[in-house]
Amino acid sequence: MQQLNMRPIAYALVGAMCNFWLFACAAEVDGDASSETAAPTVEWALAIHGGAGVIPKTMEEDKKQEYARMLQAALDVGKESLAAGEPSLDVVEKVVAMLEDSPLFNAGKGAVFTNAGEHELDAAIMDGRDLNCGAVAGLKTVKNPIHLARQVLTETHHVFFVGPGAEVFADEVGVERVEQDYFFVQRRYDQWQRALDKAKEEDKHGTVGAVALDKDGNLAAATSTGGLTNKRYGRVGDVPVIGAGTYANNRTAAISCTGFGEQFIRHNVAHDVSAIMEYRGLGVQEAAEAVIHGKLDKGDGGLIAVGHDGSIALVFNSEGMFRGAADSTGKSEVAIWQ
Amino acid sequence: MQQLNMRPIAYALVGAMCNFWLFACAAEVDGDASSETAAPTVEWALAIHGGAGVIPKTMEEDKKQEYARMLQAALDVGKESLAAGEPSLDVVEKVVAMLEDSPLFNAGKGAVFTNAGEHELDAAIMDGRDLNCGAVAGLKTVKNPIHLARQVLTETHHVFFVGPGAEVFADEVGVERVEQDYFFVQRRYDQWQRALDKAKEEDKHGTVGAVALDKDGNLAAATSTGGLTNKRYGRVGDVPVIGAGTYANNRTAAISCTGFGEQFIRHNVAHDVSAIMEYRGLGVQEAAEAVIHGKLDKGDGGLIAVGHDGSIALVFNSEGMFRGAADSTGKSEVAIWQ
Repeated sequence: MQQLNMRPIAYALVGAMCNFWLFACAAEVDGDASSETAAPTVEWALAIHGGAGVIPKTMEEDKKQEYARMLQAALDVGKESLAAGEPSLDVVEKVVAMLEDSPLFNAGKGAVFTNAGEHELDAAIMDGRDLNCGAVAGLKTVKNPIHLARQVLTETHHVFFVGPGAEVFADEVGVERVEQDYFFVQRRYDQWQRALDKAKEEDKHGTVGAVALDKDGNLAAATSTGGLTNKRYGRVGDVPVIGAGTYANNRTAAISCTGFGEQFIRHNVAHDVSAIMEYRGLGVQEAAEAVIHGKLDKGDGGLIAVGHDGSIALVFNSEGMFRGAADSTGKSEVAIWQ
Repeated sequence: MQQLNMRPIAYALVGAMCNFWLFACAAEVDGDASSETAAPTVEWALAIHGGAGVIPKTMEEDKKQEYARMLQAALDVGKESLAAGEPSLDVVEKVVAMLEDSPLFNAGKGAVFTNAGEHELDAAIMDGRDLNCGAVAGLKTVKNPIHLARQVLTETHHVFFVGPGAEVFADEVGVERVEQDYFFVQRRYDQWQRALDKAKEEDKHGTVGAVALDKDGNLAAATSTGGLTNKRYGRVGDVPVIGAGTYANNRTAAISCTGFGEQFIRHNVAHDVSAIMEYRGLGVQEAAEAVIHGKLDKGDGGLIAVGHDGSIALVFNSEGMFRGAADSTGKSEVAIWQ
């Protein structure tokens, strides 16, 4: 007989208890009495992230404010769009594109340098209505990889395009391309130079993502990344691997992950959260806790998720995760550490 | 509350009944009385596939025999290796490499032509002990993509390499590269020429794969493909997407898929089989039936799987699937259609 692994479930229960407390606090801060019982009344919900990992709490106040402002700006655009009745698929694409345009995050404009001193970007988007999805990897000249992923979803019968072929497709569908110079950000360049000297001396990961439930009850997820600082060999992480870094299914949840990509691939994290909800009947918070705390190693990263009932999970086992969440009940928060 | 989807479960029950009958027949043919109750005594088990899809039953007898002989040869090598106590990870790599070397299947030597008249190969391998895995995509010059996937697993901390970068890695680890001419097979060329004329006029998919349980109780899965005839834009299917076309977990099963890759990505088929076993406690056959018959569309393809208890599932919803299966109880079969 199959050996049942109770560890994730135990973690889920503990996690659920902790989470109830955290969310109760958040509701209090917002002057909102919503709790678990109020969840079904959520008309729309949104969560975003700008990466998880070693984010030093000693970060200068200016920098903190800069991140918080950018997350808030993206969250506000998403909130307004969902409140206006826009489809979740459009909203997650729009919000991720905003985060791609910021030099702060490792995606789009702020993408890290590869070992060859280039930039290679990956992205994925998924529609929870029909499980249709689009993913792209190894892009060198596409300004907003999430727009290209969306075109793969919308304009083709395929799911996943990689490398120069994907850029030919970008030209055919009119997705903007740029010179590699566009992605030059001094901070990323310095980070790469330090990485060339010694490996692992600082956090090298980073991603942006958004998940949303719209007024029609449809879920969508989008994730974009510049990958790993100093990466070689056309290394690709979890972001464009549907089921690992990105998944959405109207029956369960929309999930976007960030962290040590290889671990998220091995454990098929995004789909595992969906599967625990589908086959064990757990809520999105409990399912996310079961995977992040029960299956991954400490420090691996985290995820954002919106359940089909509008409940939001922001779960990570790393030092911090740039994140934001909002819903139609008035909940709205931006945070970096616990 | 979450809406439970009973459709896969209903299919699983029907599937389980059909399957019991099929396997009982197979056992009889082999003069073996093994049945469900004998499963736990299996010391090792192996299943292989050479693709699923529209395989015309009108195929000439010579051609049938050629396929059957090649499948039998690969199965025999795998059986001997497992009986001799070789690790499942080595065995699935070896068996898939044999199938790659045959011009009959769409993988390695027999890889189909892309729209540009080239060959682009993908492969993945996964170790059920620790969920470590290796995947490669968009290779143009690697003779045996499965060997490169194995090197990614064994020699790096990464999981997934794509495009020219992956070929640089091949040189560094000494995996054989060949000129594109090596992949020239007249039949594939003719198929491509017909595909250039009109789309969908024949089955364009194809894959090879192997899954095994070894004497130490370890599971492993490997899959390799030449992709889609006439494909463009660096299109990648489910094979190198861990969780879609390939997955292995000692607690559940080793799974290798074949068929309409995009559908296998959207439904995260390989990991879904594992998740149904893990979270619902179903056996490998029931879990495979639930996904192939309950979630995919008819004609999408199939999968082979070996459960942690040594039970084997060969499930497809297409016209046929080139396949073989054997275990330590004496079971040994090769088949194409139902």
